[in-house]
Amino acid sequence: MTETFVIAQGGGPTAVINQTLIGAVLEARKRYPRSRILGARHGVRGIRDGDFVDLSALNEKELQLIAATPSAALGSTRDKPDAAYCETILKGLRQAGATAFIYIGGNDTAGTQQILAEASGNDIAFVHAPKTIDNDLVENDHTPGFISAAEFVAGAFVSVDLDFRALPGIYVGIVMGRHAGFLTAAAAAWQLDEDSGPHLVYVPERAFSPARFIEDIRETLGRHGRCIIAMSEGVTAEDGRSVVEGLVPPERLERDAHGNVRLSGGDLGMSIERLINDGLPGTRARVDTFGYLPRGSVSTINATDAREAFEAGVFAVEATSSGGGSVALQCDNGVTIPRLVSLGSVAGKTRHMPADFLLPESNQISSSCRAYLERLLPRRFELARPFV
Amino acid sequence: MTETFVIAQGGGPTAVINQTLIGAVLEARKRYPRSRILGARHGVRGIRDGDFVDLSALNEKELQLIAATPSAALGSTRDKPDAAYCETILKGLRQAGATAFIYIGGNDTAGTQQILAEASGNDIAFVHAPKTIDNDLVENDHTPGFISAAEFVAGAFVSVDLDFRALPGIYVGIVMGRHAGFLTAAAAAWQLDEDSGPHLVYVPERAFSPARFIEDIRETLGRHGRCIIAMSEGVTAEDGRSVVEGLVPPERLERDAHGNVRLSGGDLGMSIERLINDGLPGTRARVDTFGYLPRGSVSTINATDAREAFEAGVFAVEATSSGGGSVALQCDNGVTIPRLVSLGSVAGKTRHMPADFLLPESNQISSSCRAYLERLLPRRFELARPFV
Repeated sequence: MTETFVIAQGGGPTAVINQTLIGAVLEARKRYPRSRILGARHGVRGIRDGDFVDLSALNEKELQLIAATPSAALGSTRDKPDAAYCETILKGLRQAGATAFIYIGGNDTAGTQQILAEASGNDIAFVHAPKTIDNDLVENDHTPGFISAAEFVAGAFVSVDLDFRALPGIYVGIVMGRHAGFLTAAAAAWQLDEDSGPHLVYVPERAFSPARFIEDIRETLGRHGRCIIAMSEGVTAEDGRSVVEGLVPPERLERDAHGNVRLSGGDLGMSIERLINDGLPGTRARVDTFGYLPRGSVSTINATDAREAFEAGVFAVEATSSGGGSVALQCDNGVTIPRLVSLGSVAGKTRHMPADFLLPESNQISSSCRAYLERLLPRRFELARPFV
Repeated sequence: MTETFVIAQGGGPTAVINQTLIGAVLEARKRYPRSRILGARHGVRGIRDGDFVDLSALNEKELQLIAATPSAALGSTRDKPDAAYCETILKGLRQAGATAFIYIGGNDTAGTQQILAEASGNDIAFVHAPKTIDNDLVENDHTPGFISAAEFVAGAFVSVDLDFRALPGIYVGIVMGRHAGFLTAAAAAWQLDEDSGPHLVYVPERAFSPARFIEDIRETLGRHGRCIIAMSEGVTAEDGRSVVEGLVPPERLERDAHGNVRLSGGDLGMSIERLINDGLPGTRARVDTFGYLPRGSVSTINATDAREAFEAGVFAVEATSSGGGSVALQCDNGVTIPRLVSLGSVAGKTRHMPADFLLPESNQISSSCRAYLERLLPRRFELARPFV
């Protein structure tokens, strides 16, 4: 039998998601020299619509260039198929003659693979390859895409901290992350010294209190003469709702097909700016929403991240011959190793930042968080401490 | 006589302003081995308050590390001294025994040097060394700090464009720049092909029409299936006022000591987002405010920019022995050369983007703008064209 691999990419792109794609393509070609390898455009939509790219036809140089290019070369989708949609996908896979389907994405993508695996017979192997800047997949020590995005955030905060040493004030950088605070906490990865920002870190895992927030800033200004803040777009109020939901008039809230409120806008930033202006009038305060900048930046493609993403793709092909499942990056004595876990153990679940990554009494990262970040993201350069 | 150099940094920091500082320190030490070199903390405030760092005492390794660190190591200030303040500064310089004062900054900084030079006798040489990410100094082909910030913007836009090829929609990135659009136009420096964003560029030099804006987007969506937009924070309406002023309730407008409306907030972004939601309802639209991220990023310190900034500092010391003035980076047959021009020719003047840098009939950059950007900022890497 000739193997036919179908590969697709789902969810938000990352800087290294194409490494996983190309890792899988090259491994499939190596193991099964006569195999067909089809890339589905825009995730499962391409399978539904029969819209494929023949990846078998490309030469190695072209493939390496794709691997080094950020974002999803095949296009992506936010579709989260239900049972009926999954039937259509199965039909599309069978029409294409697929013997294996590798879907690169986050926990929703793993969920799609789980439904497909359960609905099909044993004719197709379903493999989920991990990808998310949010770092929120269970069973994984960290996820491909996270380190590069974290490098962007770490670099941005060490830079802005230096800027605000020169011209003091309050700075808030709002970072993507609906349920997990890992990427926001990465703001602290490259701190220079005890005086360095971010001085305060607000993540979805800990309830946000506006009154406490203002007090935290006031205290930080007293100690450091400036206050640098990293905040997740998904910070939640004490009632469990996202802060954005509590602050924005209901008619202006944008929801996706799953009822999730859209967080990636300027609403939170504007609300935080007003909160600071009201609570600490007259103090220079600036809020930037990082938005899409960290997630696929050509300027911060981390070499470790790129290599691990590639290896996850290689391993995904290996996994097709052992019945399928979800590829998980696990950490064994400090070494990252891809292992195969069940789709059900990853699908639809969210890994939160461990509670002990923040100090119990203040919104600052703990030594265990720092150790985690330094293992993944050692600072690559030396910087001088300014004279001020 | 023993030379005493006072050096200070003014205005918004850049990624390479410390290169200029250290270029001046090393050149002063070379030319005048017994000279004293004092760094004033927070610009002219340090001179007023007698708050100096002894830069003569540092070893070369320490100095090189400072040079490689973004932002103003001496601290900066937004103070724009009047005649009385300038008298205090002169007094401070004389108390410090200054024979030369090198002030690194933009056109306001040149203005301070001009007032000081006119108010003093000939006992102190006043030199302005150029620095601004806005690229808005007359007499200069480009300014130290611009290329690094432009590299950030160019990298961000080529990355976001790839992201929006994968998940289509409208994207607006708002970039610093009150009066000059150079940094915003740099968004187009690394376009991959004819399909690449930014598809539309809005700068302060051309009046912004909301109705035309929506039409431009609609047309772009028809042609490219997505629309990537670069917009200066200082875009102006047809009545000459900044768009921010027209959109934000007067009580919420923040003004600085000079009456300038603060632009670096989320107000413009939110207004633009609403404008798009109203004009093109149901289309996915995202707006990010880049804010402080481009101006001193450790991840995008451009080597040419660093070298030129260093050389501007070296040349500033040379200029102290020829009566002072403003150091200008000029372009001679494609080679950047520092020259000395009068303080009055630079002080308080704004260089705008040439009118022919935008096409006459559309908000797109022209071939002359592209040639300028490619000369300063060649793309350093190859990228693959996505399959979508």
